[in-house]
Order: sequence, then C-alpha cells, then structure tokens
Amino acid sequence: MKAEHINPFINATTNVLKTMAMTSVTPGKPAIKTDNKTFGEVTGVIGLMGENVVGNMIVSFDGPSILSIVSRMLGETFTEINKDVVDAVGEITNMICGGAKTEFAEMGLGIGMASPMMVTGKDIELSQLAKALTISMPFDTPEGRFVIEANLHVK
Amino acid sequence: MKAEHINPFINATTNVLKTMAMTSVTPGKPAIKTDNKTFGEVTGVIGLMGENVVGNMIVSFDGPSILSIVSRMLGETFTEINKDVVDAVGEITNMICGGAKTEFAEMGLGIGMASPMMVTGKDIELSQLAKALTISMPFDTPEGRFVIEANLHVK
Repeated sequence: MKAEHINPFINATTNVLKTMAMTSVTPGKPAIKTDNKTFGEVTGVIGLMGENVVGNMIVSFDGPSILSIVSRMLGETFTEINKDVVDAVGEITNMICGGAKTEFAEMGLGIGMASPMMVTGKDIELSQLAKALTISMPFDTPEGRFVIEANLHVK
Repeated sequence: MKAEHINPFINATTNVLKTMAMTSVTPGKPAIKTDNKTFGEVTGVIGLMGENVVGNMIVSFDGPSILSIVSRMLGETFTEINKDVVDAVGEITNMICGGAKTEFAEMGLGIGMASPMMVTGKDIELSQLAKALTISMPFDTPEGRFVIEANLHVK
C-alpha cells in the first residue's frame, strides 16, 4: 500500500459524505492497522481487483456517526442499527469505493469492485490474508467517528 | 445466481479439500440462504468480479471440520482456532475460489478475485448488498461440517 494510494480514498470519502449525507468530515492521520478487529458498530467490506492490483476496502462506523449519516441520507430519524442502516453502509461502501476507483483510473490504475458485504458488531475479528499492509484512516463527523481501512497490493 | 453456477464451486471444494488436506467431503443439498449469520467458527470471504459478473464467495467451517482439515493440511495437530488456522481458512478460500474461477473460465465466464478476508466467530451478522440470491452449499467431512455460500450476479 503506497502513500499515494491513500488520497483517492480520503477524497472519495469526503465527497460521498458531503454529497449523499450533507455531512462534513474531518480526516485524521492515516496509520498502519495493527489489530484485526472491526472499529465500529457496522462495517462495510468490498473486494478490489484489477490487472495489477488486488485488495479490499473497509468502512467501519461507530453508532453515533452512522445513525446521523443515514438519518440525513434517507431523510428520517434512525435511532438504532437496523437493516436499513446496515444496507446504507453497503451503499456508502460502494459509493466511496466507486469514487476512489475513478481517481485511481485517472492515475492509470484500473480497479474493479466486488459486491459489498456488511459485518455488524464492534470488535469482531476480521483478518486480512493479503500481501500489503492495511492503512487505517480515521474521520470525525459532528456526531462520531468512522475509519476507512484500505489494503491494496499493486503488483 | 443460476443453478449451472453451483457446480464449479462444488467441484473446486471437493478437489481442494482432497488434494490439499486429504479430506473427503460429501456435498449436501444446495439451498437459498435465508439468514445473514455466519454458519461456523471461522469464515473466509472473497470478492468476485469480471466484465459480466459481480459477487462474493464465503466458506464457513465449524470447529471440528476446520481443526482436522488444517491439522492434515499443515501436518501438525491443531486443537484451537488460532492465527494459523484463520490464515489457513483464507488460503483455502483462495484455492476454492481459484478452482471455481478456472471452471467458470472454461464456461466462458471470466472472473477475477479480490484478497480473502476472514471473520472469526459463529453467528456473526454478515449481510450481502447484492442483487442476486445467495446459494448455500453444505459439505460434511468425517469430523464436522462447513458451508460454501456463493452470490454471483451475472449481468
């Protein structure tokens, strides 16, 4: 995972949350992920692959951040993590990954996306079998926090 | 998910377990998956995508089946689900998916694979955001049971 591959994820995250959920996010400092636990209450995962690249992207939201994001996105108030919220995490995962994919394509790196899956629960053991390090990028919203974790092995 | 797309997964599973872990498996009856919980103690997930296809494959092992499979595969006795066992599930997921991929290619369906990830724990909520139904295929080993779950949306 090269440093130059972090920005497409940060840009796509900022854009998707602003456009789809009227939520301003503040990116924190990227770091190498050292455990293998889910950060938040709901986590979207999506597989990535292309001719020269293979990996995964993860988006993991704490309760306060995702409830307020989905409430704004869908225009009704959500107070618990139900199926609509979990599905919305899948959609957000898709959109963030799609935005990053567009920026990677402009950099000459063609990436395809699998279908997203969603893991519900905090501190669930979710391990990578990957050649690259996983980079974790925290984001603060007005109500809470979420992280993007990207693992991209460029051949 | 079409019925003709089930056999490549069954064939690859039978071959990989026989070749890599000297384990004969007995396939059960495929069914549509109706819940969104992990079946077993360790679960491998891998994203799939190609020009005309998008989806995921899941392999979920109960404790007795995976401990005996990994013991035979690595030539030492494992009695608990540790990092080696979890990593082996990732490798097995990769190999089964790779075998199915080869058979799909012979059928004219080009599929690429993302990196596998592994979820540890039984009854973990793992949901699909996918257009296709998920087909669940149970397999019995001499010691236990595991399931393959495939979700393949062919455009």
